Formats: sequence, C-alpha cells, structure tokens
Amino acid sequence: MAKQLTALDDLAALDANLFGKDFLLTWDKSAAELQAVLAAAETLRELYRQNISLRCFESGLAISNFRDQSTRTRFSFASASNLLGLAVQDLDEAKSQIAHGETVRETANMISFLTEVIGIRDDMYLGAGHTYMLEVAEALDDGFKNGVLPQRPAIVNLQCDVDHPTQSMADLMWLKEYFGGLDQLRGKKIAMTWAYSPSYGKPLSVPQGIIGLMTRFGMDVHLAHPERYDLIPDVIDVATANAKDSGGSFTHTNSMDEAFADADIVYPKSWAPYHVMGQRTELLRAKDQAGLKELEKACLAENAQFKDWTCTEEKMKRTKDGKALYMHCLPADITDVSCEEGEVDASVFERYRLDTYKEAGAKPFIIAAMILTSRAKDPVQLLKQMAERGTPRKLD
Amino acid sequence: MAKQLTALDDLAALDANLFGKDFLLTWDKSAAELQAVLAAAETLRELYRQNISLRCFESGLAISNFRDQSTRTRFSFASASNLLGLAVQDLDEAKSQIAHGETVRETANMISFLTEVIGIRDDMYLGAGHTYMLEVAEALDDGFKNGVLPQRPAIVNLQCDVDHPTQSMADLMWLKEYFGGLDQLRGKKIAMTWAYSPSYGKPLSVPQGIIGLMTRFGMDVHLAHPERYDLIPDVIDVATANAKDSGGSFTHTNSMDEAFADADIVYPKSWAPYHVMGQRTELLRAKDQAGLKELEKACLAENAQFKDWTCTEEKMKRTKDGKALYMHCLPADITDVSCEEGEVDASVFERYRLDTYKEAGAKPFIIAAMILTSRAKDPVQLLKQMAERGTPRKLD
Amino acid sequence: MAKQLTALDDLAALDANLFGKDFLLTWDKSAAELQAVLAAAETLRELYRQNISLRCFESGLAISNFRDQSTRTRFSFASASNLLGLAVQDLDEAKSQIAHGETVRETANMISFLTEVIGIRDDMYLGAGHTYMLEVAEALDDGFKNGVLPQRPAIVNLQCDVDHPTQSMADLMWLKEYFGGLDQLRGKKIAMTWAYSPSYGKPLSVPQGIIGLMTRFGMDVHLAHPERYDLIPDVIDVATANAKDSGGSFTHTNSMDEAFADADIVYPKSWAPYHVMGQRTELLRAKDQAGLKELEKACLAENAQFKDWTCTEEKMKRTKDGKALYMHCLPADITDVSCEEGEVDASVFERYRLDTYKEAGAKPFIIAAMILTSRAKDPVQLLKQMAERGTPRKLD
Repeated sequence: MAKQLTALDDLAALDANLFGKDFLLTWDKSAAELQAVLAAAETLRELYRQNISLRCFESGLAISNFRDQSTRTRFSFASASNLLGLAVQDLDEAKSQIAHGETVRETANMISFLTEVIGIRDDMYLGAGHTYMLEVAEALDDGFKNGVLPQRPAIVNLQCDVDHPTQSMADLMWLKEYFGGLDQLRGKKIAMTWAYSPSYGKPLSVPQGIIGLMTRFGMDVHLAHPERYDLIPDVIDVATANAKDSGGSFTHTNSMDEAFADADIVYPKSWAPYHVMGQRTELLRAKDQAGLKELEKACLAENAQFKDWTCTEEKMKRTKDGKALYMHCLPADITDVSCEEGEVDASVFERYRLDTYKEAGAKPFIIAAMILTSRAKDPVQLLKQMAERGTPRKLD
Repeated sequence: MAKQLTALDDLAALDANLFGKDFLLTWDKSAAELQAVLAAAETLRELYRQNISLRCFESGLAISNFRDQSTRTRFSFASASNLLGLAVQDLDEAKSQIAHGETVRETANMISFLTEVIGIRDDMYLGAGHTYMLEVAEALDDGFKNGVLPQRPAIVNLQCDVDHPTQSMADLMWLKEYFGGLDQLRGKKIAMTWAYSPSYGKPLSVPQGIIGLMTRFGMDVHLAHPERYDLIPDVIDVATANAKDSGGSFTHTNSMDEAFADADIVYPKSWAPYHVMGQRTELLRAKDQAGLKELEKACLAENAQFKDWTCTEEKMKRTKDGKALYMHCLPADITDVSCEEGEVDASVFERYRLDTYKEAGAKPFIIAAMILTSRAKDPVQLLKQMAERGTPRKLD
Repeated sequence: MAKQLTALDDLAALDANLFGKDFLLTWDKSAAELQAVLAAAETLRELYRQNISLRCFESGLAISNFRDQSTRTRFSFASASNLLGLAVQDLDEAKSQIAHGETVRETANMISFLTEVIGIRDDMYLGAGHTYMLEVAEALDDGFKNGVLPQRPAIVNLQCDVDHPTQSMADLMWLKEYFGGLDQLRGKKIAMTWAYSPSYGKPLSVPQGIIGLMTRFGMDVHLAHPERYDLIPDVIDVATANAKDSGGSFTHTNSMDEAFADADIVYPKSWAPYHVMGQRTELLRAKDQAGLKELEKACLAENAQFKDWTCTEEKMKRTKDGKALYMHCLPADITDVSCEEGEVDASVFERYRLDTYKEAGAKPFIIAAMILTSRAKDPVQLLKQMAERGTPRKLD
C-alpha cells in the first residue's frame, strides 16, 4: 500500500474532462484540466518513487511518430508509455509505404487497430504540424465512429509548429515544485526572451508554449525579442487574453534588459523569426536548396546583430536579488562550451545545470499523465487502484 | 469471466495440427487448419473487445524481419505480438553484421535463443522469398534438434514471392464476417483481376494468395488479367486443384468484364507480369541499374495499353445487383486521388473505403492466431484459460 | 515451484558485491564476483528451461546504444532485458539531437529518468570506448547523487576498445559447461591466437577479453600472433598478473604451432595490430578517407604475409589428442565458405559449428545475470522468490 498521496486529493477535487480527448494545445484545456494533468503527473511520480507498479495496460501500442530529430522527448514518450504498460512502436515514414502516396486518413487507421496513444512531433513546417495532428485526429474519429477501430487512440502533441505542451507542462510542474505550489507562481515575473545562437531555424513552439501556458496562472509574463523576431500573432493574442482572464499580465517588449529586470524566472532561448519560418517552409516545400542556403546566410547575418542578447552574469544581476531561476528546454547553446558565442554564459548555465535537468525530468511523468487522463474514465479511481494493489515495480 | 465464445466451440470441433508448425503457404494447411486459424482469430478479437488480456507470454521476442517496405503488415505483426505478451525486435539487416557475410543458418540461430516467433517479409525477388523462409526454417530445426535453441521459434510469412497468407487469411476472415459464415461463401463469385497502375513491379503474392485460398471453400474464383500478365504457373495449378477438391470453380480469363459479370466480390489490383518479375530479379541481382530503368520503361509502356482495366462505376454495374463487395489489400492507386489514372475510381473506392479498412483490421488478429496456434499445444485450453482468468487488458 | 537449483546454492555461498555497480571490465571484478555472475546466469537458464517467468520489472527501460554494427550482441541484450521485464529502447545517435552538440553528461541524464540499464558498444576508436563508458558512468553518478535521476542505471559494456566482457563471460560459461566445472579448467591450455582474415581493422577486445579473463581461473593461457600484431600493453600486464595470482600461466609467443601444441582449447581469430588501430583512430577522427584507404591497403598487404596463420586440420592435429575445443565469437571467416582464405578450414568449423552456437547461446543469460546482479540488492533472494512464485513464462 502506498503512502499518503496529497496530489491525488488535488486531482479528485478538480473538475476536469480529459477522457477521450487529445492533448494538442494547452489553451484548448481549462485551468482545472491543466491542474489535473499536473496532479496526475505528481501522483505517478510519487508512486514511482515508492516502487509501485503503474502498469495499467496488459497490452497495447504507443506509436512514436517523430518527423524531426529528438532525444529527450523521444525517450520521455517511450518511458511514459512503458511505465503504463504500453509497447512503443516507431512509425518510421522512410521504412513505411507512406512515401508511396498513402493518405494521412488511411495510415492513421492502419496503425491504430490495437493502439492506445499516438505521440507526434511535427515542428518543421509553419502552418503544417498542428494541421497534420488535426487531420490524424479526424481520421481516428472517423475510424472509431464507423467501427474500424475498437478504440479511439489518444494523440499527444510532442511538439508542433504552434505549441510544445509536454515541454511547457513539464516546465510548469518544475516551477510548481521549485516555488512550492501553483499559487506561489501568482505575480511571479517570468522573462521568456530570445537569445543569440549561431544557428537558425529553431522552432517557435517553445516560446509560444511558455507564453501560452504561464499566462494561465496569474504570472507576469514578459516576452522579449529583437524587433523582427516575432512569434505567430495568434499565440500573442492567446497570451494576452489568458493574462487578462487569470489576473496576471503579459508584456511584449524588444528589450532583454527590461524583461530581466527583477525577474523571478528567466528563459533565454533562440528561435527563428516568424516570417523567416514562413519563407523557410515555402523553400523546404519547393526543395529549393539554393534558396535555403541564401535564407540561412541572411538569417545568420541578421542574428549576428544581436549577439548581446545572451544570458550573461551581468544580465543575471538585474534579476530579483540576482537569483532568478534560469530555465531551458535543452540542449542550450552555451558560450565557450557548445559554441563560441551562444544563448548563455557557461558559468550561469553550470550554476543552474542540475535545475534544467530536473526540469527535463518532469516530462516523462507529464506525458504519462496526459496518456492516463485521456484513457481512463476515472483517473483518480485508477491511480487509487494501482496504489492499493501495491505491486512492486521492481522486485527486490 | 468472458461472455459466450461461439468461435471457441468451432475451434474445439476442428481437427487441426498447427502446433510447432510454421505458417508459410495456405495450401500447406488443411481446410480444418485454416478454419482453426479463423476461429482462433475470432476468439481473440471477441476477447479483446471484452477487454480481456490475451497475454500468454511473460517474456519472449517476436522478430520482425522486413526486407521490403511496409506499414500495415509491420504494425499488424507488432500489434499481434504485443497482444500475446511478446516484445518486437527488428532485425535490421543494415545495422547487423549480416552484411559482413553471415550465413542464413548462423543468423537464424543467433537471433533465436529467447525468441518465440519470426515474421518475415521477403517479396522482392522471384524465386527467393519462399526459399529464404525454408532456409531459415531448416536452420531453426537444426538448432533446436541439436540443443542450441531452447525452443523452436515459429516462422510467419508476412509476404513472400509466392503467397501472402496473413493478407489472404485476413481477407477470408472479413468475407466470413461480411457474408455471415464460411458456408455462405460457397458458390459466391469472386473476381481477382489485374488493374492498371502507373507503377510497375508490384508483387504477385496478393493475387496468388487470393486464388490459392479462396478456391479452398467452394467459391467461384475468376482470375482475369491482360494476356502477358501471368502469375506463377504452379500457383495456377494449386488453384485449379483446390477448386476441384472443394467443389468450387476456378476460371482463368483475359477479360475483366467476364470476371466482373455478376460477381459477388471484386478484387481489382495491379501486379507485374511473372516474366517481368523474373527479368527484374536477374537485373536486381546483377545491380544493373540501366537495365532496370529500361525494363521499367518498357513495362510502363506495356501497362499503359491496359488503362481500361480499372474498376469504374461502369464496371461495378456489371456485378451482382451492381453491388459486389470491393476489396483491396491497400494502399490502392485511386484515380484522381493518388494518381491520374489508377486501379479504381475515386467514387467506388470511397463507397467501400471503410470496408477495406475493416478488411485490414482483421490482420492483427489473424497474425496473433497464427502465432498462438503454432505456440500452444492446446489453443482451445489456452484461450479458455485466458477467458476464465479475465484479467482486464486495460484497467479502468 | 522450480526444481532443484544447484547454481543458486553456489551463488549464495559467494562473497560478491555487484549491487549498484557497472560491468565494464572483468578485471575490475573479484573472482567471486565473476563466479556469481556465472551462477546467476546458470540459475536464470535453468529457470528459463523450466518455463518459469523471470520478470522482475513491471516497467523500466533498457537502453541499447550501439556505436558499431552488431547482430548477436544486440539480440542478446534485447533478449536479456526482455527476460527480466525491461523494454529495449535504441539510442540511435543519428536520429537524436546528439549530433547537435549535446554533451555526454547531458544525454546520459536525459535518457535515464526511468531507465534501469544502458548497454553500450563502442569499439571503433582505440582509447575511446572505455573512456566514453566511464564518462557516462560519471554523469549518471552525478545525476543520481543530485536528485536528477530516481535511480542510477547500470552500464553493461557490450564491447569496448579494451574488453568484451559479455563475450568472454559467455565463453567462460560455455567452457565451464563443456568441461564440467570451473575447477576442471585449472591447468587446461587455451590458445588465443591471431588468424588470417581478408579484412582488417577487427577490434582487439575479444583476444584482450579472453587473456584478461581466462588467466583468472588457473588456466594456461597462450597468446600467439605474428610479431607486429600486438595487443594493448596494459592488458598484457593484466593477464600476466592474473596468471600469477590464480596459479595459472600466461605465455606470449609468435608461434601458432607452439600455442596449438597440446592445447585443450583453441580460439583462432583475426585482429588488427595495436599500432594500426591507433593510426586508424587518428585517421577516422580526421575523416582522412585517403589515409584510411592507404592504411587498409598496407595492412591487407601485411596480413597477406601471414596466410599460414589459419586453423587447418593439420594444425588441429597438434592439439591435445587432436581434439581441442575450437571456439569463436562469430562470425568466423571460413576458408571456401565466407572467403577464399580465412581464419579456419571449413571442415574444422563445421565439426565445431554447433559448439560455437552453444557458446553464443550463453550470452543472453550472462547479460541478464549482469543486469540482475547489479540491480538486485539480494540476487539470491530475488531468484528464489521468482522460482517459488513459479509463474509460467509461457502459458500452455
């Protein structure tokens, strides 16, 4: 029998309706639903630490569909699926007949006959990733409704062009833990700022995910970037509306110093300007290699004008007591470590290195919670049942 | 405890001897054995729908050896293996030392120490795929007999140059369901016809599998193709003999119209002529890229003469009440959808789209049944035991 | 309930301290610890044969990190992990962001949140493989100590530049079985000799592993190779010291005939000279393709001078009663089978073929034993518990 599970009481008290739903964008979910995912993740982590098996599937596939490179999210998804008893099966589009002109609708059904969850990363093309997930969702609805599929698998967005909910929710779980509660985040200032990197074309989904989520819980969210490095306008609107609803604030500025001033949390990270991602998408689609080279060159030259957008010790001194929490989704471009000049000074990164690792360590439990709350009619009951069963995860 | 399982009673009544055997060609099996696989698949599907765990292995590998691209069969094999408790391990010949000159005999043993089943797709070279599977089988026999292997893994043919038994058996399971029983298929006319596609080199194993299997149960099987698009002559002989034995018929014609006339079922699908596959095999072996290009060009030109071999609304009107069941192993070349001119009109395909998906949905259970009947001394007893155990597949 | 398990009594009597430790080099372990791994492997094999489930993990990842090609070790690791209930997850460095400049320290933590074991093969670069494993180990220690990781995964060396402990321990398990006990090996002469192969650049880890391990148990170990085909000098020192400690002997010679004379066991196998591997490492690092071609040419020419270093029937006659046990880690270069002139005559290999397969068959159990003894505080208790539980591995 498990020890006391306070997060489970929190979960029981929340009015959440996640059963049978996909997890695509945090702003599709109510605040109670987001809190329910956090509480489920915390309960899973607590039971894991007590060596209690969280296996609730005797069989079932978890499909891993990565359309871009990944280490931490790939392993987080694999860990989460395995934790619940699902077997990971990669959908490797190079090895499949998808290249042969199958439609999304057909493939979505063909891989889903005995499938419980499909995790998708599709973040390369602006305007495409989220759209693709909606297409898959519609195909699954159609298949389930018409008796093709014995169950309707859940989709978990493992990063699209718009949002990166497993990252931002893991970040939120970490902040909740670090500051001692979700209510402790109210009024805290978080600086989501652009930072210089000697590469280009990094997705917008992390900063978008952060401003879209952290504005839900009364935080003072400051987005800062050089003038032309805009995010998708719709997401700016989402953040603005969220802040108003939650009693927090959303400030959009072109000054890193303003954002860092008295900040409780800083999240300095490179991304490509919105208009560049648009151009890049067109060039990628046209397979215009020369055009892509050209664009990269122009962008790197533009980036180079903003090398002072970097998280130095000097900049950190401007934050609350000089001790803001540094966050990053990893891997960071660290000056003098992974590159000559990058997003963050080596000494700053090293001081917060273990914190960023702990931030990342929340992700497997967040993903497991997303799967569990989508698959279980009564997640509280299910978690209780597993706690009471008390099967050791690892015999000793 | 599971609800009533009528298919399990059917299984108990059949005199089948599948234990310890591979599943390579349907015509190696007795009619009772084929029916036993169907009954086992239906029982597995029924128990799955009742959320009853079908895990009968606590550990064991299922090796997935695809020598050609695949989505649906790869996922069907993975789903089936996982359903029974086996872990899928890909044998990726590029990543292994097989490229370094290992013999089939040695590799077959090296991968099999703790292995229960090996699924193989090898359909590219005429005269090679089935032969390869026999070689693997012999190596496993040798290893088991001599105490190298603690158990003799079963081989399941996931498509070879001769037969595609997981496809044809899934097709048969679907037909049995659609028409309400195997006895209802007696006298039904099925048209297995060639159809135009803007590609070339598609394997012969689907049409061969269909005429080799559907002739077993008293159906009127009509094979139709343009003159030079022959199948392997031996398989024609098999179909002829089967039809005679089962009290059905086998008609071989060069007219799509004749085949469609009053048909209950139509299966229009492209394939490469037998003699072309033979040439192609030689060129592939010689790595003669120029020769392959040449051959492709000639074949496509030949194909283009038969663009009227396509499943139009017009042609469908010729079938029984204009309402024959359309079948396809997927993906189909759909006119104006996946190509300009293809195997089937978009409107015909769309009308039967969900049917073709359901047809495909039988495959995971067919493969699981092939594994189970080969691994269990007494499959009826084992299925009963799992039904009585009643462990939920998914906790709720 | 399992039948009598004599190996388990052996295990209980040994003073071994393997819990929480990595398995990197056999000479890091005490003789008792090596015997404990053998006894655990034998117990696992015996229980497997009795169809008793050895699942002791309800969830958990086993990461498979192969930086070089592999069939048998890859499948052995997968089989072993699956046997204990772990799910294999490949760390495919091409698909991950490792290429993007992640540090080993970071990646090691990122993949390990819910991980129990990491199997690593890294044998291409002299001076690199073992060093890499130590780096990963240090990163995991750091992550665990600082609360990043809920458990410290074990590392199993699946072949590095220095040692190949899963191979040498499987070889030892086979020798123990073949000769009827570890004490029966005392005084037996084993000839680890270089043999000609029409390839170059084969790793040194097998001969090094053999002389490093077989000298632990009082055997007369003879290492023979042409003059310039030296192994790493440090390992020669290890073997010399081991032989002295264990009451055996270690003889280093340039004569295959001397080594074969009256030998009980012969292990003829090709490898690249130490100094060549050093040069090769530098050229690989510099991506000097022309230099590598040049080196290969020079080496093959040098190799060709030693074509008489091959295990012929003639040479076998020199061994004890002409009946020494032939060993090989496989795949062997067999004259007239896999190459024109190779390491061994076809007739010799064929006579011992099944023996080499059985030798290989020990590996999954050795790896499972390495995992189990590293993860379980009390392996004897755990094995007893599983034996008493008596859950069938495969329902029947």
